[in-house]
Amino acid sequence: MIYLDNAATSFKKPEAVYEEVMKCMREYGANPGRGGHSLSIRASMEIMKVREKLGWFFNIKDPMRICFTKNATEALNIGISGYLKEGDHVITTSMEHNSVIRPLNTLKRDRKVEFDVIDCNQFGEIDLDDIKKAIKPNTKLLVSTLSSNVNGIIMPVKEMGSLASESGIYFLLDASQGAGSIRIDVEEMHIDMMAFPGHKGLLGPQGTGGIYIRDGLKLSPIIFGGTGSHSEIVFQPEMLPDNMESGTLNTPGIIGLGAGIGYIEEAGIDNIKARKHELVKTLHEGAEEIGCVKIYSKNDPKSNSGIVAMNFNGIDSTEVSYVLDKVYNIATRAGLHCSLMAHQTLGTVKSGIVRFSPGPFNTLDEIDITLNALREISNSI
Amino acid sequence: MIYLDNAATSFKKPEAVYEEVMKCMREYGANPGRGGHSLSIRASMEIMKVREKLGWFFNIKDPMRICFTKNATEALNIGISGYLKEGDHVITTSMEHNSVIRPLNTLKRDRKVEFDVIDCNQFGEIDLDDIKKAIKPNTKLLVSTLSSNVNGIIMPVKEMGSLASESGIYFLLDASQGAGSIRIDVEEMHIDMMAFPGHKGLLGPQGTGGIYIRDGLKLSPIIFGGTGSHSEIVFQPEMLPDNMESGTLNTPGIIGLGAGIGYIEEAGIDNIKARKHELVKTLHEGAEEIGCVKIYSKNDPKSNSGIVAMNFNGIDSTEVSYVLDKVYNIATRAGLHCSLMAHQTLGTVKSGIVRFSPGPFNTLDEIDITLNALREISNSI
Repeated sequence: MIYLDNAATSFKKPEAVYEEVMKCMREYGANPGRGGHSLSIRASMEIMKVREKLGWFFNIKDPMRICFTKNATEALNIGISGYLKEGDHVITTSMEHNSVIRPLNTLKRDRKVEFDVIDCNQFGEIDLDDIKKAIKPNTKLLVSTLSSNVNGIIMPVKEMGSLASESGIYFLLDASQGAGSIRIDVEEMHIDMMAFPGHKGLLGPQGTGGIYIRDGLKLSPIIFGGTGSHSEIVFQPEMLPDNMESGTLNTPGIIGLGAGIGYIEEAGIDNIKARKHELVKTLHEGAEEIGCVKIYSKNDPKSNSGIVAMNFNGIDSTEVSYVLDKVYNIATRAGLHCSLMAHQTLGTVKSGIVRFSPGPFNTLDEIDITLNALREISNSI
Repeated sequence: MIYLDNAATSFKKPEAVYEEVMKCMREYGANPGRGGHSLSIRASMEIMKVREKLGWFFNIKDPMRICFTKNATEALNIGISGYLKEGDHVITTSMEHNSVIRPLNTLKRDRKVEFDVIDCNQFGEIDLDDIKKAIKPNTKLLVSTLSSNVNGIIMPVKEMGSLASESGIYFLLDASQGAGSIRIDVEEMHIDMMAFPGHKGLLGPQGTGGIYIRDGLKLSPIIFGGTGSHSEIVFQPEMLPDNMESGTLNTPGIIGLGAGIGYIEEAGIDNIKARKHELVKTLHEGAEEIGCVKIYSKNDPKSNSGIVAMNFNGIDSTEVSYVLDKVYNIATRAGLHCSLMAHQTLGTVKSGIVRFSPGPFNTLDEIDITLNALREISNSI
């Protein structure tokens, strides 16, 4: 199997991820922060190391401002629903995932939160002036993806962060696509909140993710309950990370995430980015030469986090993806990719898109085989 | 290390749990339900098998009414916050975990939900008549733990379910303590919703759990976003389980949970219960013979899910637990156990409780060593 669905979940993982997950489960699979015994303390300490590693990785000075969640979707819900109040206005982009759009629509319905969606161009590129014009007196939040999960377009995050900061509104970044191959510095980029998944570019296991919350920003939790701390109070403890970490954490998953980040540190994030771009560039340029293929992604590493989104003219994306899987054993994703507006932006609501998302462990040989498959499909139409 | 903290997280797990988690991660660690390719379909199918296994295990006819969550706390929040509306009244017990009490207090504050707590006796036993008397015209929900996480007392779940059913109110069971060694039949017990963790008695990995929602009962989700389904709509899809399963699931964890249940099926739930009771009984009776020990648990399998809660007269629980860990390498838990009211009920708010919770893999030899340690501590006071 040639796996080109890393934008959904990275696969394979670095060897250390498998090993550390197993080591944790077999050697210290106790409950972190719920007991004073040695195994529990070891679990807590190992989790703390991952928190610190994430802090270092994203330039977050206080790792206690990072709360672990089950995935980036939970993190986005905390950032959006935990912050916005009745009458607040939000600005977002037309390239967002349903994990941003559905919470916003729900708050619009239930909490009278208003939001404006800034239209992007046919490649998903945004005009900063359009954001500026959309700012209103009650604008409280700018939410943007770091990079689109549909076509990989990278947003001008630093500029968006500056604009938000200058305008006195908070900036929530959805780093689901790009974290692990694009350098993120929460200070330099003026990021106030950041949601990230563990199982994509950070190369950790599924069931992991987190939210960074800038110091001084107070959010309401969306889940209340056991935290192992302050058992004597009947409300949720206010201190972070406990405030957002109710119930037993996914310890083995978090430990695996730490190993994934360890791998990225060792390999070098810029090397991973370059490696991914080499694969994307080869696939992009090869596909461009196939007559009936239309590509919706850009082909430079500054604009693309690692996706080639394409269609064969007139053919539904699911058909192409199906043939790639069944005939050629190549895993891609087709359809609407949890993001209706992005498809409206790219003009692919009807056809969907075939998404090719290589990871750091794919090879140029695999891309060549994929291009051969695309050529054969093209010839058979 | 003698691990007697299985009420927090079961450790070790059955060998198959480790093996299946690794097999999933290495062989089919793709994204379930997010793509049509073979690996993704395999991940979806394996998750479906676990859903079916859980359905069989709890006598839930439609496995699609089981939604996976990150832990039982998230599940309880869905059951409580997803169901209750302004003006509703809830009845619960004084033996509940913070994962019930904190959501209820939050709803009381934010949504004007009322609730009454039924006091239990000094062993945590409840009087059904007290529940009956507390039912009001606006009572919509009865929430109870299957068994206390502090002293193991088992609630009369079947009778509570019948009473709720006859009174036209829903019954939400917190099966955190007991699922895996106490038979649960949602039909026979009139359970309308049930929250369960994967990582305790069900012997699965941390980061897993779920909620069962009876057919016809419509709850609001607490997390909105990517479900891999109905990408064309900007609100959360209403069908279960997608309605409650936003974002990528913890596939390896869920697969491991399936292996945990597989182990219980093979070993036989009644055998596991008998095995745990043998350990509890030996510890209980041995501890009773030590003069200065006070025990807060009952010693019959019908009343105790597998916990011996005790204190040495006049000594703080954390001190005893600390010595057990450092000197004897025995893992127990001390303190308030995320459940203030249970300690008020048992009269242990000041001292906390030393909790011994054996699992199916503990041995009688380990219990003997533990009793020797307790005798030595007693002699040294």
